[in-house]
Amino acid sequence: MSVTAALGFLAGGIRAGIKESGDPDLALVVNRGPSRAAAGVFTSNRVQAAPVRWSRRVLADGRVSAVVLNSGGANACTGPGGADDTRLMAERTAWAVDTTPDEVAVCSTGLIGVRLPMEQVTAGITAVADRLSAGGGEDAAVAIKTTDSVHKTAVATRDGWTVGGMAKGAGMLAPSLATMLVVLTTDADVGTDVLDSTLREAVRTTFDRVDSDGCMSTNDTVLLLASGASGVTPGAAEFTAAVHAVCRDLARQLIADAEGASKEIEVAVVGAASEADAVEVGRSVARNNLLKCALHGEDPNWGRVLSAVGTTSAVFDPDRLDVAINGIQVCRNGAEGESRDKVDLSDRRINVTVDLRSGDCSAVVWTNDLTAEYVHENSAYSS
Amino acid sequence: MSVTAALGFLAGGIRAGIKESGDPDLALVVNRGPSRAAAGVFTSNRVQAAPVRWSRRVLADGRVSAVVLNSGGANACTGPGGADDTRLMAERTAWAVDTTPDEVAVCSTGLIGVRLPMEQVTAGITAVADRLSAGGGEDAAVAIKTTDSVHKTAVATRDGWTVGGMAKGAGMLAPSLATMLVVLTTDADVGTDVLDSTLREAVRTTFDRVDSDGCMSTNDTVLLLASGASGVTPGAAEFTAAVHAVCRDLARQLIADAEGASKEIEVAVVGAASEADAVEVGRSVARNNLLKCALHGEDPNWGRVLSAVGTTSAVFDPDRLDVAINGIQVCRNGAEGESRDKVDLSDRRINVTVDLRSGDCSAVVWTNDLTAEYVHENSAYSS
Repeated sequence: MSVTAALGFLAGGIRAGIKESGDPDLALVVNRGPSRAAAGVFTSNRVQAAPVRWSRRVLADGRVSAVVLNSGGANACTGPGGADDTRLMAERTAWAVDTTPDEVAVCSTGLIGVRLPMEQVTAGITAVADRLSAGGGEDAAVAIKTTDSVHKTAVATRDGWTVGGMAKGAGMLAPSLATMLVVLTTDADVGTDVLDSTLREAVRTTFDRVDSDGCMSTNDTVLLLASGASGVTPGAAEFTAAVHAVCRDLARQLIADAEGASKEIEVAVVGAASEADAVEVGRSVARNNLLKCALHGEDPNWGRVLSAVGTTSAVFDPDRLDVAINGIQVCRNGAEGESRDKVDLSDRRINVTVDLRSGDCSAVVWTNDLTAEYVHENSAYSS
Repeated sequence: MSVTAALGFLAGGIRAGIKESGDPDLALVVNRGPSRAAAGVFTSNRVQAAPVRWSRRVLADGRVSAVVLNSGGANACTGPGGADDTRLMAERTAWAVDTTPDEVAVCSTGLIGVRLPMEQVTAGITAVADRLSAGGGEDAAVAIKTTDSVHKTAVATRDGWTVGGMAKGAGMLAPSLATMLVVLTTDADVGTDVLDSTLREAVRTTFDRVDSDGCMSTNDTVLLLASGASGVTPGAAEFTAAVHAVCRDLARQLIADAEGASKEIEVAVVGAASEADAVEVGRSVARNNLLKCALHGEDPNWGRVLSAVGTTSAVFDPDRLDVAINGIQVCRNGAEGESRDKVDLSDRRINVTVDLRSGDCSAVVWTNDLTAEYVHENSAYSS
């Protein structure tokens, strides 16, 4: 159901011929209203793709009627020509769905540094606009895949209103954000300001806490569009919870499908003096290649956890650090605790808990293991 | 010749039985004077091994008569018992070579979180002290190897005086420092203050610019010992140049022998507004797993260079970034330049040059590619 689970939205996805493989590569999501309120969060990478620069300006007004998305090319580092291509995508989309270009967000994903084949893109926009439907959410989710092995959708249905969404992302996952395109839709009647604050808070503790390979993309975009078609304005807490649930679901799907991953690793940092400390430590542990290799080999190498913690500026005493791996307290007071032989790492999901014993704050960062398959996927061909 | 190339030094290396493999694992370097001046630089990781904590205190006085080094165990994250073990190593060494424990530096390398087999260590110290010789530098260099495939030594001989050294390091290479133990010796007659400033400056632009896998160790130690036995006090510039040459030589050997590496990558950042900017950008590029995979696959994926540059806080304009790979200007003004097909990446050595076009400062960071062999070496067994 994806982005069309909520009332008021049409979507579609087609093969436009952008990808050499012939796989689906162009998606369109249209908000039929009555509201066009929208919010967006974008990559914090300073090298930003042309569609990110464009969509930032579109979202500044808090109004989006359509989102056009392509896989098969990131349109990043493509100079003034790339910016022209993005504007043309917005113009063609606006013409096809009867709106104005300044209400059309554009998302692109794929190889950096290559111009898009605009003949295929523009013809594709006309074609996908002809096939929009209230059941087109799945097709749209499929068309934004790159190295994703499965398409990713999530829906939260509440009393009379719904939040739904789709995501793509497989490699280059890192805060903030991970390499991802995410479109969320809701038929709740919610104004731009609430959408914006709700989205930022939800992203902060979900997509921003995903760190697959420490690499930050040029194209990351998360959009939230509200149609108001349900006629219901939910309470703030209820709405926030629903958006958060959908974001969390999609974030976990991204980690589960990360390139070459054989383990999904949850790094929980507790006892931190501040949430910022907890996040810094969580990211440092989640990015440690040596630990990610060890966990791939099912080796509960807690020394590599401590060496990662030691590179941060968080408040802690090295002689009071505790680490548990899958519930076994392998490190106590910065030294050996229970036997590492007790740790069972055969399951796909692994939990690493670091207790800084310096306060009451905590955070969770999700990552995965580092595998020969990751190396292969990212060395065998350009992406 | 290693650490015994300079006059006034004796060294040795033996099999003490610390390693299960039976390979050499204990080394001793003794300064016979007349001077005992010394300087040291240690890991900036806040989780520091017991020998690092000990040696910091020893070096605070600027006087070192002996260095005892073991492989086969890092004695890191070993609690108060580990600190006792380090002190005992210093005491036994002091007794064996007729000095005081507060003039004995201790270095350990190997698995984190495991206590050393002290019976083997103490018996080994007595044994190696009996076999010290003015030609023992090679044996010492061999005995500090961990996953190193070759031992590493370097010598700079000048007019009447010499600087020599040995290093070990293979994985967990990152600033600052890389995972390394380095002992440098000189028979120049140089005081502690000059040794200290010379060593810090040399390390800053050599070992601190090595970033193999972004992981920072708990045990990194670089020591410089002066015997004064040549009777020569070189000019400051000449002495600095010799120490720098030996450090640079050893740093390059570390990268050349990094775990699983098939490429040696020099990331040169030019046109930076400050040296700090250049180093930040260089490290960000050197740590980018996706780029390291691409270069492993001989793919000149400059988009991954730009996405790494974009995560830094350096001064630059994304639309004025230039990138050359092996001399081919693949990116100009933040967009495609010369054809990537012109880039030949078949050689083991690769140069990536990033021009920030924002100033006159520059820096070089050395790294290597990310390979399936790296994953294998670091997942198949604990290290």
